Amino acid sequence: MGFEYREGYLYCENVCLKDLQEQLKDSGIFPDSPVFVYSKDLILKNVKSYQQALNSLPNDTGLNFSVKANTNPHLLRILRDEGCSVTLVSGNELRLALQVGFTPSQMVLNGNGKCRWETRLALETGCLINVDSEFDLKQTIEVSKEFNLEARVLLRINLNIDAHVHPYISTGMAGSKFGIDEEQLGHVMDLIKTENHIKVFGLHCHLGSTIQDLTAIRLCLKKLKTKLDESIDIKYINIGGGLNINYMEHVDDTQCIDHEDDQILKQVEGKLKDLPSNGFKIDHQKYKNKQINRRDWIKKLKEHDMLPDCIPENTTPSIKDLISTVEETGFHHSIKIIVEPGRSIVGNTAVLLSSVLGCKTSGNIRFIVTTGSMTEVLRPSLYDAYHHIDFTEPVEDSTRHLYNVVGPVCESTDFLGKDRFLKTPHEGCGVAVWDVGAYCSSMSSNYNCRVRPAEILVDGSSWKIIRKPDSYEDMMSAYEYQQ
Amino acid sequence: MGFEYREGYLYCENVCLKDLQEQLKDSGIFPDSPVFVYSKDLILKNVKSYQQALNSLPNDTGLNFSVKANTNPHLLRILRDEGCSVTLVSGNELRLALQVGFTPSQMVLNGNGKCRWETRLALETGCLINVDSEFDLKQTIEVSKEFNLEARVLLRINLNIDAHVHPYISTGMAGSKFGIDEEQLGHVMDLIKTENHIKVFGLHCHLGSTIQDLTAIRLCLKKLKTKLDESIDIKYINIGGGLNINYMEHVDDTQCIDHEDDQILKQVEGKLKDLPSNGFKIDHQKYKNKQINRRDWIKKLKEHDMLPDCIPENTTPSIKDLISTVEETGFHHSIKIIVEPGRSIVGNTAVLLSSVLGCKTSGNIRFIVTTGSMTEVLRPSLYDAYHHIDFTEPVEDSTRHLYNVVGPVCESTDFLGKDRFLKTPHEGCGVAVWDVGAYCSSMSSNYNCRVRPAEILVDGSSWKIIRKPDSYEDMMSAYEYQQ
Repeated sequence: MGFEYREGYLYCENVCLKDLQEQLKDSGIFPDSPVFVYSKDLILKNVKSYQQALNSLPNDTGLNFSVKANTNPHLLRILRDEGCSVTLVSGNELRLALQVGFTPSQMVLNGNGKCRWETRLALETGCLINVDSEFDLKQTIEVSKEFNLEARVLLRINLNIDAHVHPYISTGMAGSKFGIDEEQLGHVMDLIKTENHIKVFGLHCHLGSTIQDLTAIRLCLKKLKTKLDESIDIKYINIGGGLNINYMEHVDDTQCIDHEDDQILKQVEGKLKDLPSNGFKIDHQKYKNKQINRRDWIKKLKEHDMLPDCIPENTTPSIKDLISTVEETGFHHSIKIIVEPGRSIVGNTAVLLSSVLGCKTSGNIRFIVTTGSMTEVLRPSLYDAYHHIDFTEPVEDSTRHLYNVVGPVCESTDFLGKDRFLKTPHEGCGVAVWDVGAYCSSMSSNYNCRVRPAEILVDGSSWKIIRKPDSYEDMMSAYEYQQ
Repeated sequence: MGFEYREGYLYCENVCLKDLQEQLKDSGIFPDSPVFVYSKDLILKNVKSYQQALNSLPNDTGLNFSVKANTNPHLLRILRDEGCSVTLVSGNELRLALQVGFTPSQMVLNGNGKCRWETRLALETGCLINVDSEFDLKQTIEVSKEFNLEARVLLRINLNIDAHVHPYISTGMAGSKFGIDEEQLGHVMDLIKTENHIKVFGLHCHLGSTIQDLTAIRLCLKKLKTKLDESIDIKYINIGGGLNINYMEHVDDTQCIDHEDDQILKQVEGKLKDLPSNGFKIDHQKYKNKQINRRDWIKKLKEHDMLPDCIPENTTPSIKDLISTVEETGFHHSIKIIVEPGRSIVGNTAVLLSSVLGCKTSGNIRFIVTTGSMTEVLRPSLYDAYHHIDFTEPVEDSTRHLYNVVGPVCESTDFLGKDRFLKTPHEGCGVAVWDVGAYCSSMSSNYNCRVRPAEILVDGSSWKIIRKPDSYEDMMSAYEYQQ
């Protein structure tokens, strides 16, 4: 199930998104605002994929959902019911996990800068703590002594491995703010030896987010194994999360992909230099000037045997591949292996549903302006991330143009996608931004006094609201403070 | 007044920020969370600077605060009392302005994608509307007809002028999502001629944000003047906002500036290539390896006559300079001139006050981890923006190192400043991030379940809370929705 087109209309499971949008509008409580729509079926499927792969290991395993990816308690309840544990990065996420009903043994508190009240809450709860640095360790020791509580910790190690991801989400290289450098580990272990309140239960390593390269993970696991062989009494290995999802999954060859084109253009231009002037060069110029579309251009490239190596294939590793990599490392069977996926559990399970406000042109750039914006989906602005965008209903004007899809937020940062080869939509046409289940609602803001949107969970043919949109009164209530 | 050090402690007006922080902690309602602290005096001063400069013009003028820069109603009330008007970019900002007590004649509604309810609200209120595009005009016409309301509009023109700012905040070039291209203006005017419900009152042009270059503004004004000479019945010219503030104002030569150094290094390395190997080259390598500090390195550059042209001077134009540029354009005296500053009214009026959680090292990078983060100050992550950072109290260990100042948010995106040449602070040491009055609290989020912080207004020796921090319950209330 999940998301699919039926006779030109986009469905989430058995719910037609255009109908859903009309119903929400008619209800009067969602005037024109975008909504996140989640597929329960896809969430269950992703969890099952992890569980099946993890069950193939001889070890005890923990599938810890990384709550920062999505903090909606209704989704967390589904994950709890499916047997997931959670990784938390703040005291409030810990409170949330307790409220949702996760048990202390199902929780790990992570974080490079914990406040004392957060460390105390974790110790009182009795969950595992990922210790991130010497100063974090000292705080953990102090708080555990002060309140006479035992600290069960994993040590987060920085193994200096390049995961080849955007620098903003790379976390496992020397120079990262996360973890304890390998060279410092001995010193940290010495500090712990003299302390009775603190027990090291395991090691943690997380390389970054949107990882496509299992080589890096393989190297990381090998290094962790070596560390284990040197140590004793290790009960847990926490290998972090970070598996990418295929954000290009829904792209067909009628649509243009901004990301790769820069690379392709450079490679093609490199090759063109060595060629005598010919008609192909003219086509290339036309593509650069956006006078012909990407599909025709790629066809031309193929004809001229000029298709560069960098035309991307899907290299996103599967969950199974990831777990196979764990298996081949051969950790001792007595060790519990924890994985902490966020994106690969919920990333592809939601779309942002919005509407077209209008189309316009400036210079040689065409725009589709939608009710959705950077305040709901910050990833394009923040990481230059790609999210697939398409309409949720048939569009009469089938002429395709290169469009920048933007929102109504009053700054140029506000875009959802650039250079998308789309039909020309009518006003009110439904728009879906794909793969927004992770790091979208959790990063949303009230910038421009925009309400953070409703969230809806689809289950077969039924749906329910699992987050109401902010009201104007909600946004303003914090300012009514009286001393 | 504003912010200044007295005997090693940072004061906002007459309030010692370290004392303030202790009082907030003791009150028990702000466990370790950062706070925004505003100086009322600085706000008044900035408004006065604009008013004095505007009063020197023979024209009627409007000083419209751009509410998206800061939506705190307590600050808006101060601005209203000082005679400011407002520019709004959403229906909810319009509701806020009404609530604060601005009159319709004091409001302009801007925006490249207005929903129908927003346009209707503006028409019912009777405020000016900046029409952004042909589709925006059509909607305005339709809504005004449907509800039999008169629309008083300004036309936002894109005059294709490069303001030389970050592409994310440049808005006045061809290819921007904002405004009507010059070539389309005639067509738009023709559409309006046949409509009785709509009256064009003026023109609007906004080049972008953080503008340092008055040449661009001069050109813009000249072009606007030419447009006026061609038209009749124009009552208003809205020249937008976007004046930068000097984010480097508080930097002294003991501190390192990340931004410029890349440029400087490139220029120096260009020059070094042509020189025979010498001791200076070694110093340069030392600086690159962060073994000597910036001040000493610049001293060396000067000695060797190698100081590149790009060592920055403060080129931020003053408010007076801006208005002089308006004056020299010589608009007819009957035309009302509207300016829409946001940043230059409130940007320098606040600091984010946080505390040091600890210091750590990874590879050759040193970190100061603070309780403040990207969830309060997104500008460094989003625009690579510079915010000055320093401690609010004396620091015993006076050894300076190059530090990255980061927050506790669980991703590498989370930094407040890089390569800052700072003393080594103790745990709990107060930290101030400067110039966060604009585009910080309004862009803040609950990512990682972090509470959006309290805001405090200082007035002389007294202070009051003008925004309470979110509580855990506030954050979760939206999820308790029952259908």
